[in-house]
Amino acid sequence: MSLLVVGSIAYDGIESPYGKEDRIIGGAATYFSLAASHFTHVNLVCVVGEDFTAKDEKIFHGRRIDTTGLERAAGKCFFWACRYSENLNDRVTLATELNVFADFNPKIPPKYADSKYVFLANIAPSLQSGVLHQVKKRPKIVALDTMNYWIERTPDDLRETLKHVDILIINDSETRQLSNEHNLLRAAKHIFKMGPSAIVIKRGEYGALLVDKSGVFCVPAFPLEEPHDPTGAGDAFAGGFMGYLAGCGQKSDAALRRAMVYGTVMGSFTVEEFGPRRLVRLKTKEIHARARHIWKLSQFKLQ
Amino acid sequence: MSLLVVGSIAYDGIESPYGKEDRIIGGAATYFSLAASHFTHVNLVCVVGEDFTAKDEKIFHGRRIDTTGLERAAGKCFFWACRYSENLNDRVTLATELNVFADFNPKIPPKYADSKYVFLANIAPSLQSGVLHQVKKRPKIVALDTMNYWIERTPDDLRETLKHVDILIINDSETRQLSNEHNLLRAAKHIFKMGPSAIVIKRGEYGALLVDKSGVFCVPAFPLEEPHDPTGAGDAFAGGFMGYLAGCGQKSDAALRRAMVYGTVMGSFTVEEFGPRRLVRLKTKEIHARARHIWKLSQFKLQ
Repeated sequence: MSLLVVGSIAYDGIESPYGKEDRIIGGAATYFSLAASHFTHVNLVCVVGEDFTAKDEKIFHGRRIDTTGLERAAGKCFFWACRYSENLNDRVTLATELNVFADFNPKIPPKYADSKYVFLANIAPSLQSGVLHQVKKRPKIVALDTMNYWIERTPDDLRETLKHVDILIINDSETRQLSNEHNLLRAAKHIFKMGPSAIVIKRGEYGALLVDKSGVFCVPAFPLEEPHDPTGAGDAFAGGFMGYLAGCGQKSDAALRRAMVYGTVMGSFTVEEFGPRRLVRLKTKEIHARARHIWKLSQFKLQ
Repeated sequence: MSLLVVGSIAYDGIESPYGKEDRIIGGAATYFSLAASHFTHVNLVCVVGEDFTAKDEKIFHGRRIDTTGLERAAGKCFFWACRYSENLNDRVTLATELNVFADFNPKIPPKYADSKYVFLANIAPSLQSGVLHQVKKRPKIVALDTMNYWIERTPDDLRETLKHVDILIINDSETRQLSNEHNLLRAAKHIFKMGPSAIVIKRGEYGALLVDKSGVFCVPAFPLEEPHDPTGAGDAFAGGFMGYLAGCGQKSDAALRRAMVYGTVMGSFTVEEFGPRRLVRLKTKEIHARARHIWKLSQFKLQ
């Protein structure tokens, strides 16, 4: 079943100990779509500026990504730049130029209005709400990402939006900030009261947790000897996770666990090279091979 | 098969947001023995002072722990005190009084001299070497723990000792410090050149990794809502891990994975209460129930 994603397409400037890119295509919706399109048909809603090149747009072509919802506005694309620390665990933001993204007001094309799976990438909670109002029927699964900026600046809007969300996909520090609770299990219980019935907590090199009312599922990160650039890994994780769920049309515990594994797989490929380069040339068979590798490195028998 | 452990018995002063203990029995050998004795017979070698009470000694009785090697010396027991941060992730050492431990020179009782499984808890590397010289035949498995103090102060002694070690059981920051390498996979490869053929990397709330020449195995931490005191969790992990291996007499990949799970189980019980209290009243059936719980929260099927 098709999957609607609303989020950013950006140009990123990235410095890591492994190299430097002044201007490479990025943005949550880019990483999400590239990852999810291996599993299902993706409907993309976002805005780009006049500087968005035909060459960059091509990365969405020849995939199961519908770009009808790709709006073009006067001005420049969202630009973001950062520098990663030696071990890639910390980063300094060097620039955030919203440009056309500042006035983004997502419009859902009529043909996307019956979307059954919706991912609201990290944008203003009021815009995330606006997207849901444009979707005709209650989707099967609405998932949402957010960040410290919205948790701090627009807590009321975020609380209102969360009432209509099934799965919150955020990182551990955001989980703690949103719930005002250090312990992640207690944090999840707080967040369940806000609306979501499940929380996916991304922990970078430590893997990810799925917490829902039936319990906890832990998946390790895929161990890599030479990660190059963590940019977009969380968005690609969300793409693998939601893409898998939309593709299989199930939301059983077994399906959610597999979705966590495919999220992990997509995040792990993303960090191997700068920007979305590794995702762009990724083959579906590589995804399944890595999923089997994660199976091997996490499974055991007690007897 | 019986398991020899050489390490410390101490009195600990512990402050955490959950309470305060001025003087509670601790030390690596204490936690290790209590944990390992659920799986196998433990031979304990350590030193205590004149202040070591009969009541505290009783915690070793009625278990599969042989205290023939418990040496009594003039002076006081090793004393260590610390204060944990609000989220238990950081701690400040408030006191380290070596006392009788300063002159500890482990003597292995003759009846322990054919030990097949040996755990060298965190003491001076030269003493760890001394223990190995007293063991008659090459044991099946020698495992060793160490810490930043020895990595910095006695690197040559540590390197010499590591040549005779099969499994190094340390935490992630020690792994990085010893190898001078941030990435844990690359760090493990460096350490393999020093002697060990396997490394168990303890990562606290993020679980543990086993890295050996056949690959990586990841086990998540058991999620707890209210950990009270992390003291001794790493030693109890080592006790569960080595205890399981000695108890089953195998060192297959499947056995090593189960050992990782039982290590995790023992660490998780340890942190539930102050000092070794939870370990002291732990029932073997609780251990197996928690191992099954870890199985449930980490296992998945790809199809």
